[in-house]
Amino acid sequence: MPNSAPDISLRDFQQLIRKMYHEKDVARGVDGTFMWLMEEVGELAASLREGTPAETAAEFADVLAWLTTIANVADIDLTAAVVEKYGSGCPGCGRLVCSCDDAEKP
Amino acid sequence: MPNSAPDISLRDFQQLIRKMYHEKDVARGVDGTFMWLMEEVGELAASLREGTPAETAAEFADVLAWLTTIANVADIDLTAAVVEKYGSGCPGCGRLVCSCDDAEKP
Repeated sequence: MPNSAPDISLRDFQQLIRKMYHEKDVARGVDGTFMWLMEEVGELAASLREGTPAETAAEFADVLAWLTTIANVADIDLTAAVVEKYGSGCPGCGRLVCSCDDAEKP
Repeated sequence: MPNSAPDISLRDFQQLIRKMYHEKDVARGVDGTFMWLMEEVGELAASLREGTPAETAAEFADVLAWLTTIANVADIDLTAAVVEKYGSGCPGCGRLVCSCDDAEKP
Protein backbone atom coordinates (compact mmCIF):
# COMPACT_ATOMS: atom_id res chain seq x y z
CA MET A 1 0.00 0.00 0.00
CA PRO A 2 1.26 3.50 -0.75
CA ASN A 3 2.26 5.57 2.25
CA SER A 4 2.42 8.93 0.51
CA ALA A 5 -0.99 10.12 1.69
CA PRO A 6 -1.19 12.03 4.95
CA ASP A 7 -2.05 9.96 7.99
CA ILE A 8 -5.18 10.63 10.04
CA SER A 9 -5.97 9.45 13.52
CA LEU A 10 -9.15 7.53 14.08
CA ARG A 11 -10.20 10.07 16.69
CA ASP A 12 -9.63 12.98 14.30
CA PHE A 13 -11.64 11.19 11.61
CA GLN A 14 -14.53 10.62 14.00
CA GLN A 15 -14.43 14.31 14.97
CA LEU A 16 -14.31 15.35 11.31
CA ILE A 17 -17.41 13.31 10.52
CA ARG A 18 -19.10 14.64 13.65
CA LYS A 19 -18.39 18.23 12.64
CA MET A 20 -19.53 17.60 9.08
CA TYR A 21 -22.77 15.70 9.70
CA HIS A 22 -23.71 15.51 13.37
CA GLU A 23 -26.77 17.73 13.24
CA LYS A 24 -28.29 15.73 10.38
CA ASP A 25 -27.15 12.43 11.88
CA VAL A 26 -28.87 13.08 15.19
CA ALA A 27 -32.07 14.13 13.43
CA ARG A 28 -32.02 10.89 11.42
CA GLY A 29 -31.13 8.72 14.41
CA VAL A 30 -29.45 5.32 14.54
CA ASP A 31 -32.13 3.47 12.55
CA GLY A 32 -32.22 5.86 9.63
CA THR A 33 -28.46 6.12 9.58
CA PHE A 34 -28.07 2.34 9.59
CA MET A 35 -30.06 2.18 6.34
CA TRP A 36 -27.49 4.45 4.67
CA LEU A 37 -24.66 2.26 6.00
CA MET A 38 -26.33 -0.78 4.45
CA GLU A 39 -26.67 0.96 1.10
CA GLU A 40 -22.97 1.80 1.17
CA VAL A 41 -22.07 -1.77 2.13
CA GLY A 42 -23.97 -2.93 -0.94
CA GLU A 43 -22.11 -0.44 -3.13
CA LEU A 44 -18.81 -1.67 -1.66
CA ALA A 45 -19.72 -5.26 -2.50
CA ALA A 46 -20.53 -4.28 -6.08
CA SER A 47 -17.33 -2.31 -6.41
CA LEU A 48 -15.21 -5.17 -5.06
CA ARG A 49 -16.65 -7.28 -7.89
CA GLU A 50 -16.43 -4.85 -10.78
CA GLY A 51 -15.10 -1.44 -9.71
CA THR A 52 -11.77 0.24 -10.39
CA PRO A 53 -9.36 0.54 -7.44
CA ALA A 54 -10.28 4.24 -7.14
CA GLU A 55 -14.01 3.46 -7.06
CA THR A 56 -13.47 0.71 -4.51
CA ALA A 57 -11.37 3.02 -2.34
CA ALA A 58 -14.17 5.61 -2.40
CA GLU A 59 -16.71 2.95 -1.33
CA PHE A 60 -14.49 1.90 1.58
CA ALA A 61 -14.34 5.56 2.62
CA ASP A 62 -18.14 5.82 2.49
CA VAL A 63 -18.68 2.68 4.58
CA LEU A 64 -16.17 3.92 7.12
CA ALA A 65 -17.84 7.35 7.21
CA TRP A 66 -21.32 5.90 7.79
CA LEU A 67 -20.05 3.49 10.42
CA THR A 68 -18.42 6.45 12.13
CA THR A 69 -21.62 8.45 11.85
CA ILE A 70 -23.55 5.73 13.67
CA ALA A 71 -20.86 5.64 16.36
CA ASN A 72 -21.33 9.39 16.78
CA VAL A 73 -25.09 9.06 17.14
CA ALA A 74 -24.68 6.14 19.57
CA ASP A 75 -21.99 8.08 21.48
CA ILE A 76 -19.31 5.40 21.01
CA ASP A 77 -15.62 6.34 20.88
CA LEU A 78 -14.27 4.19 18.03
CA THR A 79 -10.67 4.69 19.12
CA ALA A 80 -11.31 3.44 22.64
CA ALA A 81 -13.34 0.57 21.17
CA VAL A 82 -10.60 -0.72 18.85
CA VAL A 83 -7.81 -0.20 21.36
CA GLU A 84 -9.82 -2.12 23.95
CA LYS A 85 -10.64 -5.00 21.59
CA TYR A 86 -7.53 -5.27 19.38
CA GLY A 87 -4.84 -3.23 21.14
CA SER A 88 -3.46 -6.22 23.06
CA GLY A 89 -3.48 -8.72 20.19
CA CYS A 90 -6.08 -11.01 18.69
CA PRO A 91 -9.15 -11.16 20.96
CA GLY A 92 -9.28 -14.92 20.33
CA CYS A 93 -5.72 -16.07 21.07
CA GLY A 94 -4.14 -12.93 22.53
CA ARG A 95 -1.26 -12.98 20.03
CA LEU A 96 -0.13 -10.16 17.80
CA VAL A 97 -0.07 -12.59 14.89
CA CYS A 98 -3.27 -14.59 15.27
CA SER A 99 -2.79 -18.30 15.91
CA CYS A 100 -6.45 -19.20 16.41
CA ASP A 101 -7.50 -22.47 14.81
CA ASP A 102 -8.49 -21.93 11.16
CA ALA A 103 -11.97 -23.21 11.90
CA GLU A 104 -12.48 -20.40 14.38
CA LYS A 105 -13.73 -17.00 13.50
CA PRO A 106 -10.65 -14.86 12.97
CA MET B 1 -16.90 11.00 24.21
CA PRO B 2 -14.02 10.30 26.55
CA ASN B 3 -10.57 11.25 25.31
CA SER B 4 -8.57 9.35 27.88
CA ALA B 5 -7.86 6.33 25.63
CA PRO B 6 -4.71 6.40 23.53
CA ASP B 7 -5.18 7.59 19.98
CA ILE B 8 -4.39 5.37 17.01
CA SER B 9 -3.86 6.37 13.41
CA LEU B 10 -5.98 4.75 10.76
CA ARG B 11 -2.84 3.62 8.98
CA ASP B 12 -1.44 2.02 12.14
CA PHE B 13 -4.74 0.24 12.74
CA GLN B 14 -4.76 -1.14 9.20
CA GLN B 15 -1.18 -2.34 9.68
CA LEU B 16 -2.09 -3.90 13.03
CA ILE B 17 -4.94 -5.86 11.47
CA ARG B 18 -2.71 -6.82 8.56
CA LYS B 19 -0.02 -8.14 10.90
CA MET B 20 -2.57 -9.98 13.00
CA TYR B 21 -4.66 -11.65 10.29
CA HIS B 22 -3.24 -11.15 6.81
CA GLU B 23 -2.20 -14.72 6.13
CA LYS B 24 -5.65 -16.06 7.04
CA ASP B 25 -7.38 -13.16 5.29
CA VAL B 26 -5.64 -13.78 1.98
CA ALA B 27 -6.40 -17.51 2.18
CA ARG B 28 -10.09 -16.71 2.76
CA GLY B 29 -10.22 -14.01 0.08
CA VAL B 30 -12.60 -11.10 -0.31
CA ASP B 31 -15.78 -13.18 -0.64
CA GLY B 32 -15.22 -15.27 2.46
CA THR B 33 -14.12 -12.25 4.43
CA PHE B 34 -17.17 -10.27 3.39
CA MET B 35 -19.39 -12.92 5.00
CA TRP B 36 -17.69 -12.32 8.33
CA LEU B 37 -18.17 -8.57 7.92
CA MET B 38 -21.88 -9.14 7.36
CA GLU B 39 -22.14 -11.29 10.47
CA GLU B 40 -20.51 -8.54 12.51
CA VAL B 41 -22.79 -5.90 10.99
CA GLY B 42 -25.73 -8.00 12.18
CA GLU B 43 -24.27 -8.24 15.66
CA LEU B 44 -23.77 -4.47 15.68
CA ALA B 45 -27.40 -3.92 14.73
CA ALA B 46 -28.54 -6.21 17.54
CA SER B 47 -26.27 -4.50 20.03
CA LEU B 48 -27.47 -1.03 19.04
CA ARG B 49 -30.97 -2.24 19.92
CA GLU B 50 -30.31 -4.06 23.17
CA GLY B 51 -26.61 -4.08 24.08
CA THR B 52 -24.74 -2.28 26.80
CA PRO B 53 -22.44 0.56 25.72
CA ALA B 54 -19.42 -1.73 26.24
CA GLU B 55 -20.96 -4.48 24.09
CA THR B 56 -21.87 -1.97 21.40
CA ALA B 57 -18.35 -0.53 21.42
CA ALA B 58 -16.91 -4.03 20.95
CA GLU B 59 -19.23 -4.64 17.97
CA PHE B 60 -18.14 -1.36 16.37
CA ALA B 61 -14.52 -2.50 16.81
CA ASP B 62 -15.31 -5.83 15.14
CA VAL B 63 -17.04 -4.23 12.15
CA LEU B 64 -14.14 -1.84 11.74
CA ALA B 65 -11.65 -4.71 11.98
CA TRP B 66 -13.43 -6.80 9.33
CA LEU B 67 -13.83 -3.80 7.04
CA THR B 68 -10.11 -3.17 7.43
CA THR B 69 -9.37 -6.83 6.74
CA ILE B 70 -11.23 -6.64 3.42
CA ALA B 71 -9.33 -3.46 2.56
CA ASN B 72 -6.10 -5.37 3.21
CA VAL B 73 -7.12 -8.25 0.97
CA ALA B 74 -8.26 -5.82 -1.76
CA ASP B 75 -5.05 -3.78 -1.34
CA ILE B 76 -6.86 -0.53 -0.51
CA ASP B 77 -5.23 2.10 1.72
CA LEU B 78 -8.09 3.23 3.98
CA THR B 79 -6.26 6.39 5.02
CA ALA B 80 -5.73 7.56 1.46
CA ALA B 81 -9.34 6.63 0.71
CA VAL B 82 -10.89 8.73 3.49
CA VAL B 83 -8.53 11.66 3.02
CA GLU B 84 -9.35 11.69 -0.71
CA LYS B 85 -13.11 11.47 -0.15
CA TYR B 86 -13.64 13.47 3.07
CA GLY B 87 -10.42 15.41 3.63
CA SER B 88 -11.64 18.51 1.80
CA GLY B 89 -15.13 18.64 3.28
CA CYS B 90 -18.44 16.98 2.46
CA PRO B 91 -18.20 15.22 -0.94
CA GLY B 92 -21.69 16.54 -1.73
CA CYS B 93 -21.42 20.27 -0.96
CA GLY B 94 -17.70 20.70 -0.33
CA ARG B 95 -18.26 22.32 3.07
CA LEU B 96 -16.73 21.29 6.36
CA VAL B 97 -20.17 21.47 7.94
CA CYS B 98 -22.43 19.78 5.41
CA SER B 99 -25.10 22.02 3.88
CA CYS B 100 -26.51 19.51 1.40
CA ASP B 101 -30.28 19.52 1.09
CA ASP B 102 -31.87 17.27 3.72
CA ALA B 103 -33.44 15.15 0.99
CA GLU B 104 -29.99 14.33 -0.34
CA LYS B 105 -27.88 11.50 0.90
CA PRO B 106 -25.59 13.00 3.53
